[in-house]
Formats: sequence, C-alpha cells, structure tokens
Amino acid sequence: MTYLDQITSPTLLIDEKICRANMKRMADKASRHGLKLVPHWKTAQSHEIGNWAKEYGIKEVTASSIKMAEYLCGQGWENIHIAFPFNPLEIPRLNRLAKSQSISIQLINTVTTQKLVDGLTKKVGFFIEIDAGYGRTGVKNTDFELIDSILQTAKTSEHLFFKGFYLHAGHSYYMPDIPALYEQTRNALSDLKTRYRKEYPNLVTRTGDTPGCAVMEDFGDIDEMGPGNFVFYDLMQVELGGCERSDVAVCLAVPVVDINQERGEILVHGGGVHLAKDVLKNPDGSNNFGEVVYLNASGWTIPDSKDRSYLKSISQEHGVIKASKSLLETAKVGDLLGILPIHSCMTADAMGEYLSLDGKIIDHAEGCH
Amino acid sequence: MTYLDQITSPTLLIDEKICRANMKRMADKASRHGLKLVPHWKTAQSHEIGNWAKEYGIKEVTASSIKMAEYLCGQGWENIHIAFPFNPLEIPRLNRLAKSQSISIQLINTVTTQKLVDGLTKKVGFFIEIDAGYGRTGVKNTDFELIDSILQTAKTSEHLFFKGFYLHAGHSYYMPDIPALYEQTRNALSDLKTRYRKEYPNLVTRTGDTPGCAVMEDFGDIDEMGPGNFVFYDLMQVELGGCERSDVAVCLAVPVVDINQERGEILVHGGGVHLAKDVLKNPDGSNNFGEVVYLNASGWTIPDSKDRSYLKSISQEHGVIKASKSLLETAKVGDLLGILPIHSCMTADAMGEYLSLDGKIIDHAEGCH
Repeated sequence: MTYLDQITSPTLLIDEKICRANMKRMADKASRHGLKLVPHWKTAQSHEIGNWAKEYGIKEVTASSIKMAEYLCGQGWENIHIAFPFNPLEIPRLNRLAKSQSISIQLINTVTTQKLVDGLTKKVGFFIEIDAGYGRTGVKNTDFELIDSILQTAKTSEHLFFKGFYLHAGHSYYMPDIPALYEQTRNALSDLKTRYRKEYPNLVTRTGDTPGCAVMEDFGDIDEMGPGNFVFYDLMQVELGGCERSDVAVCLAVPVVDINQERGEILVHGGGVHLAKDVLKNPDGSNNFGEVVYLNASGWTIPDSKDRSYLKSISQEHGVIKASKSLLETAKVGDLLGILPIHSCMTADAMGEYLSLDGKIIDHAEGCH
Repeated sequence: MTYLDQITSPTLLIDEKICRANMKRMADKASRHGLKLVPHWKTAQSHEIGNWAKEYGIKEVTASSIKMAEYLCGQGWENIHIAFPFNPLEIPRLNRLAKSQSISIQLINTVTTQKLVDGLTKKVGFFIEIDAGYGRTGVKNTDFELIDSILQTAKTSEHLFFKGFYLHAGHSYYMPDIPALYEQTRNALSDLKTRYRKEYPNLVTRTGDTPGCAVMEDFGDIDEMGPGNFVFYDLMQVELGGCERSDVAVCLAVPVVDINQERGEILVHGGGVHLAKDVLKNPDGSNNFGEVVYLNASGWTIPDSKDRSYLKSISQEHGVIKASKSLLETAKVGDLLGILPIHSCMTADAMGEYLSLDGKIIDHAEGCH
C-alpha cells in the first residue's frame, strides 16, 4: 500500500523533502545576508507546513486576508502580518483577533488609518506599503506627504504602532531585469529608512517577491524578506529562473479517463477548479496549463525535455494533455499522472488540502479568502 | 439592516428573482420545443437553488464529478447524471452512490465500459458522449465501430443500461456561428438516433451548452437540453449574445480599500481566489476581469455603458478597477462595490456559498471537484 492506492480523484500531492529543502535554502540565504525571513503563508496556508517551517528558524508569517490570519492564529507564531491594504470594514474582526495574537497590518492611506484610530481597541502594528514602480498598490516611495500624514494620524492612537516599510516588487513576475528592479527596491527602502529612522529607530524594511528573493544576492540594508511561493515553487518560477523543475514541491495527481492516439492526447480529470487557470506560453506560442510528471510509490520523476507532455487546454473539470510519444505508448485509462502546476499558490488554494507521500492529509485553510 | 450590513469581506451575492427568471425562461423555452430541461448543476451546486428549480418543473440535474453527485444526492432528484468521461478508479464510490440515488454516467471508450461490467454492483445508466467537432472529448459522431463496441461491451452487464447520446458543443464559446454549430449538433444526434433506435427504442439525445440553448430556436429531434450557466449567466454569456447584463444573477461584493485619483483606479479586496481568472478583452485590447455594478439595499444597478468601470487586473487577492469619472467622484474607502463575473461557474466554485439579498446564506457544495 502506498499513497497512490488512496487516490481515486484529483489530489494535490506534497513532497515534504522538497518543501523542507526549499525552506532551508531560503532560510540559509536570509541568514547569510543577515535578513529575517518572514514567509508569506498565502502559498502554504497550513499549520502542518508551518510546523516544518519552524524547524528552520521561521517565527513569523504573513497572511493575505484577515480570514487567513484567523486560521493561522493560535499556532505559536510570534506575529502574523496581514499583507493587504487594510479593509476598514474589518476593524471589529481585527480587534477580536488581536486579543490573542500579535498582529500587524498594512496601510496606504489616511482614511483607513483614521478609521483605525477611531475603532481600534487592541494594540496592532502596521507597515506602510511602498510602491517603487510595480503600480498595483502602495504609497509612492517619494510621496513623503502621504507617508507623513499616515504616521501623524497613527500617532494619535495608543493602539497603532509603526513597524516599518513593506515593498512587494511584483513586477519581477513579468519584467525580465530583476537586478534592475532590485536596485530600485533597495534604494527606495534605504532612502526611507534613512529619512524616518531618526524618529522611528526600530523601523524595519521588508521586501517580498519570490523571484527576487530567489535570484538576488545583494539586499543592501533591507532587514526582512517575505517571499511566499518559494515553499512550493512552480513552473512560473522555473520560467523566471528562480528554481528548477525538481524544486517544485507539489503536483496534482489526476486520473486518466481517455486516450486519443490519433490526436496524441490524453484526457484527465483535472481542470480549472483544481489547478486554477494560470497559463504559460510554450516556445511555439501554444498554451501550457501544467506539465506531466510520472508518479511512483515514493513521489514523482520528471521526464527529459524531449519527452515532455503538458496540459494544452483545461476547462472547469477537464484537462487535455498533449502527450509525448513514450507517454502515449505506456499510459492506460485508469492510470494516475502528476501535473506540476503553473501557479502553486492558486492550485493549493483551489484544492484546499494536500496528501503527503506517506499518505497523510496535510491541512490547508478552507476558503480563507 | 439590509444584507449589506452583513458584508465585511468578499461575498458572492445572488439575486433570487433574476435567477428564477433565468430558470423560468429556459424551462419555458424547453417546453415550447418539447424538450426536457436537465440543467448542469456544476454552475449552481446548491440544494437551495435546486429547490427553486423544482418549481419550474426541473426534476433531474447533471453533475461534473462524482463528488458533486454525492453532494446533490438525497435531494429528491429523479436522476443525477455525471457528465464527465467516467473515471474507472471511482467504481466503488459509484456503487455506494447508486444504492440510494438513480445515477447515470458518460462513456467514451471500451476500457472503462469493461471495467464497469466487471465492477458494477448496482444499476447505472449511461450516455455515450459524442464529439461532433468540439474536439475536447467524446466519440466522433461517425465512429460507429467504437459506439458499437461500447454498446456490445455494456450489454454483457446486467447493471449497465444505455440511455442515449450526449453532446456538448462547447465550441459555441469561441466560434461565432452558433446556428452552423447547431446544425452540426442536430444532424449528428438525429443520425445517431435513426441508426440506433431500432435496437434502443427509448434512447434519448441531449445537447448542452448555454450559448446554444439560449440563442437557438431549432432543436430538430433532440430530446433533452442540458445547459448549466444559464441559471446565473455572466459577462462571457453577455458577450456571446445569450443574455443581457441585467440577466446576470450573481455578483461579487468587494470592499474598497484604496482610491488612486491620479491613475483613475480603485483597489478592492477581490482577486483570483474569489473570481477565478477568466478574462474578456475590451474593445481596445485591454483585459476585463469583471465589471462594476452599484449595490443598494435591494440589489444592484448597472451603470450606463458610458459610465462603465471594470477590473483591469487581478492577482491572488487584489483587484484593480479602472474607474469611470463618476465612480471616482463618489467612491470612498470602506464602500462596497459589486463585480459582475466573467465566468460565474468558476466564481461560485471559488466562493463556496452565496448571500441572498435578504441576508440568508445559500449553500454551495464545498470543494466538490
């Protein structure tokens, strides 16, 4: 009996060894650069994987919603940071959560800051989120007027305390020159530290994206790193150069339901509700919704690149694999195949739990968004 | 107190009146054409919405996985059809389910048929899925050898009984000429009926896609229609011409967390984990991940087209709205906005429950994929 005997429908597998190696590598890197590693737990969303993380010196995590922070609460984390511009409708919920858990939040405007001043009943830390070019969210790194205004407003509350500046350089996912982006990030955070540390001597700066944290070696005077995806990695990160296929720690086991020799295609139960719909482009411009690996009793093996098979299309539940010659020759209806995901955070969120290679269910927050 | 006072985080709203009108309209159309309406319940995945459907004469539904069929079981459905090429690993589960619920499945090859002959212990109906050009799955409509082989194999079991031919013309989602597709569908199913009804006088033919069922008026001798999305509709269906924006029965309520006047953008808590990542293209080629509607105590209103605001980008939890001038003038941090989804099936699956406009939670199967 192996874990494979437990699987009859799409199941997200986790290889604990690969996952631990990913965490150890990033923890070692953080330590080598004198940075504190505070991983973004939106990827793993798990108590059990959190316990593994603690073995590598990880003591704090980040959540992407208050619901996820509630799930992670009570697990011994020294602090949980909610890395999303705070939603003022959730102040009552934040007060409840902060009763039993050290929490920090993220601020980018004075309206929400004032609402917190008016409504907070418990002590809560905050980072100001900085935008140094990504353009999704955050205060522009040169908008000192807004930064000062948030800090002045916060100062009127005995419950809000300033922790520092948080920057997510998410454009590392689609802009090729990560070193140039990191220079921008380093300089923006360093300038802010210089400017504000007189008044806030304990302020820290944190930066967060996995591609940057994986490939960069110069973090300047940044204090903390907050990547998320690195615990699992995925094919998007492989494409960005931060990891190898063999570093991807999760794969979706899918049952083969039909084989079309004529078209060279294999139909599996595994679609958008399992993998989510993130997609990469193959060199020939066709879509790639995930790549096939071969499952065995102790995990999975990755085919040679000349023997690569991939999901050419997915709908809600269906996946159509463009199969290599050798896969077509050997695959049978009723087999299980593995799919390395394009975006593991979204796949894990869609699946809601993991199966370990020794057949144990590993928890994942349910619907924590 | 209205339903709005209950919302502090992303919440999927359902307008029961719109949903009922959609079901009534399709039931009336089916009846006018002498068709039986067997909706695909992968869209709603709900007992409560199933109860509404029963008021319009709907007595059978379709599921897209055995897990979903298990959820829908025991709710008084005369039959539940699992419209996915049957996965032979789930035969034991099928036997358990078929003890208490009339079930039918879908077959496209002899391997799985033989495994069912060997493993079934309860009576189960089956459709043969036909591919008349979509190319995702199914037996080619002219591949009589394979159809005969499935039927011959099935005949050796006392538990398998043939119900008919099922065709999902899913290319109606991306090919503009729906009437031409429907001619193909009608002809394929009619030819098969003629060929096989001597031996199977009770066989029925069923076709399923919402765009086709919504716009077509000639169903030939097709017996049953099985659309799914029509219970909610969405912006993809609006684009395909099957409904109006005012027919969309669900919208995601999202909290406003920041407003960027300079860029004309509003940041909301609402991203890929809530809406899924389906996307349409605006006329100028930019992305549209959903459109803003204005919430009020009794539901929502749709802005004029000149006053349209839409989600220009989403990530895991963030949504960035490209806002109209009037929305920018009135929106405030802490407000709630509504987002009409691009693909309501995926959004409902991601959210896992609904809130009605009178403030009641409406069930949705959790993780039934």
